[in-house]
Amino acid sequence: MWKPDRSRKTPIYQQIADYMEHRISFGEFPPGSLLPSERKLADELRVNRSTVVAAYEELRSLGILVSSKGSGTLVTNYNKGNAASLTPNWKEYVNGGNFLPNLPFIRRIREELRKKTDMIDFASGELSPDLFPNEVVRELLQKHPFQEQLGYDDPQGYSQLRETLVSFLEHHLHIHSTESSILITSGSQQSLYLILQCLLNPGDAVAIEDPSYCYSLPMFQSAGLRLFRLPLDEHGIDPKELIALYRKHKIRMIFLNPNFQNPTGHVMPLDRKLKLLEIASELGIPIVEDDTFTLTAFDGNPPPTLKSLDKNNNVLYVGSLSKIASSGLRIGWLIAPQTVISRLTDARQQMDFGLSNIPQWIANHFIKEGHLDRQIQFLREELVKKRDEFIRGFDDILADELTYSLPQGGLTFWCKINSAVDDFKLIEEATKRGVIFVPGSVYGSSKGCIRLSFARPQFEEILPGLRQLALALEACRK
Amino acid sequence: MWKPDRSRKTPIYQQIADYMEHRISFGEFPPGSLLPSERKLADELRVNRSTVVAAYEELRSLGILVSSKGSGTLVTNYNKGNAASLTPNWKEYVNGGNFLPNLPFIRRIREELRKKTDMIDFASGELSPDLFPNEVVRELLQKHPFQEQLGYDDPQGYSQLRETLVSFLEHHLHIHSTESSILITSGSQQSLYLILQCLLNPGDAVAIEDPSYCYSLPMFQSAGLRLFRLPLDEHGIDPKELIALYRKHKIRMIFLNPNFQNPTGHVMPLDRKLKLLEIASELGIPIVEDDTFTLTAFDGNPPPTLKSLDKNNNVLYVGSLSKIASSGLRIGWLIAPQTVISRLTDARQQMDFGLSNIPQWIANHFIKEGHLDRQIQFLREELVKKRDEFIRGFDDILADELTYSLPQGGLTFWCKINSAVDDFKLIEEATKRGVIFVPGSVYGSSKGCIRLSFARPQFEEILPGLRQLALALEACRK
Ligand SMILES: Cc1ncc(COP(=O)(O)O)c(C=O)c1O
Ligand SMILES: Cc1ncc(COP(=O)(O)O)c(C=O)c1O
Repeated sequence: MWKPDRSRKTPIYQQIADYMEHRISFGEFPPGSLLPSERKLADELRVNRSTVVAAYEELRSLGILVSSKGSGTLVTNYNKGNAASLTPNWKEYVNGGNFLPNLPFIRRIREELRKKTDMIDFASGELSPDLFPNEVVRELLQKHPFQEQLGYDDPQGYSQLRETLVSFLEHHLHIHSTESSILITSGSQQSLYLILQCLLNPGDAVAIEDPSYCYSLPMFQSAGLRLFRLPLDEHGIDPKELIALYRKHKIRMIFLNPNFQNPTGHVMPLDRKLKLLEIASELGIPIVEDDTFTLTAFDGNPPPTLKSLDKNNNVLYVGSLSKIASSGLRIGWLIAPQTVISRLTDARQQMDFGLSNIPQWIANHFIKEGHLDRQIQFLREELVKKRDEFIRGFDDILADELTYSLPQGGLTFWCKINSAVDDFKLIEEATKRGVIFVPGSVYGSSKGCIRLSFARPQFEEILPGLRQLALALEACRK
Repeated sequence: MWKPDRSRKTPIYQQIADYMEHRISFGEFPPGSLLPSERKLADELRVNRSTVVAAYEELRSLGILVSSKGSGTLVTNYNKGNAASLTPNWKEYVNGGNFLPNLPFIRRIREELRKKTDMIDFASGELSPDLFPNEVVRELLQKHPFQEQLGYDDPQGYSQLRETLVSFLEHHLHIHSTESSILITSGSQQSLYLILQCLLNPGDAVAIEDPSYCYSLPMFQSAGLRLFRLPLDEHGIDPKELIALYRKHKIRMIFLNPNFQNPTGHVMPLDRKLKLLEIASELGIPIVEDDTFTLTAFDGNPPPTLKSLDKNNNVLYVGSLSKIASSGLRIGWLIAPQTVISRLTDARQQMDFGLSNIPQWIANHFIKEGHLDRQIQFLREELVKKRDEFIRGFDDILADELTYSLPQGGLTFWCKINSAVDDFKLIEEATKRGVIFVPGSVYGSSKGCIRLSFARPQFEEILPGLRQLALALEACRK
């Protein structure tokens, strides 16, 4: 991002005025559109607010901007020769569409993290940069000259990667599949999106866990579905609840994350898994198993997946490299009956013409040559270290403040805050103190919970971050 | 794809039976689902039909398959202990959804190309493999050790690539933009998809060219839009028609491909472009400029884009590397006002969490170090050679059969067939003879046209392909 250059002779406010005029003249802010507030721009450029005030003043004096109390700073029609001409009402266009925006909390958290790079990040459900296999990927790229074609690839995904995944999933998770029953997607995210868009109709009833990652995804609402919640206890959902829900609402699909669930970390025990499969099969309801975390199992014994127990082809299985190796490769997979795979392949082809084969080619070498196995070993050890450092912090700093359940896999702690605090207030106080996390309400209806990612912060940041969290909690209670 | 192994002792039919049983037991074809017809599977595996008949017979004898006249070969419930249990009715699921499948012609063409690798391909609007910069990409990967992070990237796209594109587009096309007003997408395709999903509402009226690439995209219908056609003459659409259409239907957006239009190859002259911008601006209607081919201009003088002439921010500009360098990198871009960019970035984040940064990092080096400039030079020369070989073929072999307009850029010929032939029949006769192309009806309402890609076939295939096309035409007239 552009920043004012303090070594230049031009005053900072003038540099900012020039920069904003440049952005305006290049069409980023059409006439009538709102500029960022003075405070926000000052934050972004890391200058005093008064400097931005001076910059905007400069542009007002040129007739480029106009400000009014209450409605902010607007771009004028200054460069229009022809007063009759109109620009499209872009604001109206962006408020249209079927596709709902991300939740305000999520947007806010992303914004904070983008703006303040020194924020301690307990929010992102993602590995820290040092846990990614950077060195290995660099070496793979040097070792294997790229010999693949640069044309459109098979929209179902690079076939060698699909073959490699068949063996990998068979070996590690006892999941049987074939190269032709796998679709490679841009992470699990795109698998979920394709399922929602192509297999369900607006008005369909769908069951999701409460709390769950799905709950945080506006794309479920965007698809016009009726969402019904299956509450979780410490062993996941109770399969029998599904029957009642089905009778009442004719549930057409269930979305589950049975192992090391996001956000709770819970694992569904085997007997519940079997019961659930039995019920779903009797009712003829497909289960979408979002299986992002199973291989992180800290004890090296991944719990069984629904898919590996599924005798009746009830399960659409969704996995990805994101949480075990690299989220930036954007490699996910869906295992499903042939007819589903061809339908979704056809649709994704229309949406994005398939993935680039370069990351797929890298992922193939990465998995095939055993690097993923080693990465998972390494990751488990590192995640345990970080988890345990959090526990130390909880016990020392936050013992009276929150209750947590101990995760045996996955990337996050799910904590209940012992006193009543307001989510908004807490986030406000925490970000002020340089630490950020996700309020539980983003994931469901339970109140007074927060999700803390132990995978994302650097080890050294954990205790300082928890100390700031304790201070934020204290400030909220005042 | 699996193929029977002729060097093994097991008879071919038995290998096929084992292979299909394997696919069935792994859930690819759940009980009740239809297997490929004997003819189709024989084609795919390149064996005699009788061999597949024997393989299916084997599986029928095991109770795994059941065949009946008229309804094909179905998978039985053979492996179900529990007769009461049900599998989801996958067929019903895949027939649901908002998202319409690709046109049958397009699916058919893809299928033929996948099956018969020796087919002469006049269908794909894509460069032939030898026109991609394979060597350069291989060298780039060796020369630059990958130092980027492997985490989720900015969903708006790798910022260095956005900066590089700003200079590139300024320099080559006089398009002014800023890093923050660019969104990197998975080809132009995803830009179009995002625009349709996020800026328009079901029921909105939209104008597209007839014929056009948009016409072939079911995603327009999937979005529930009302589509109105703007007919093309040899200079593109007549801007005045837009006024009438707007009065009648309150058009909310126009999709245009003004330079070297797909499929016609036409270029809209400057006066029409200016008139169009004036009208769109008066009416306040945004124009989506799908600008995929401008830089291929064979004479080295790219015609002006609407975006470079756009004074009022009416144009959403869509471009991509696909037709000038590599379709497999999946790099496209959208230039739009800030408010549109943030809306679309938020939505795409929900759909796929953004692109992998590896292809973006490659694209950045490729453009920044001048390789794209050299590639475009090279490409123009090669495309002209192929185009001229087609012209030779038209004159020698098809002079009485079809009329074409001479493309000065782009990848395709648009040809009118002089006699009345049926599209289906013609494709049938052509594929039988090992040559394939796209019937004009895929792109619009005009009858008796075909689109021939001159970029895709190998030089040596052009004349033989045209000879087979001539024979196919002759067979149709019989
Ligand atoms: C449960 C779950 N599913 C899916 C995803 C999407 O991740 P990706 O698309 O990177 O695989 C996430 C990411 O946080 C997740 O937590
Ligand atoms: C006019 C036009 N626009 C867009 C596309 C999509 O291409 P891509 O997504 O590879 O940029 C094509 C591909 O054929 C096209 O012809």
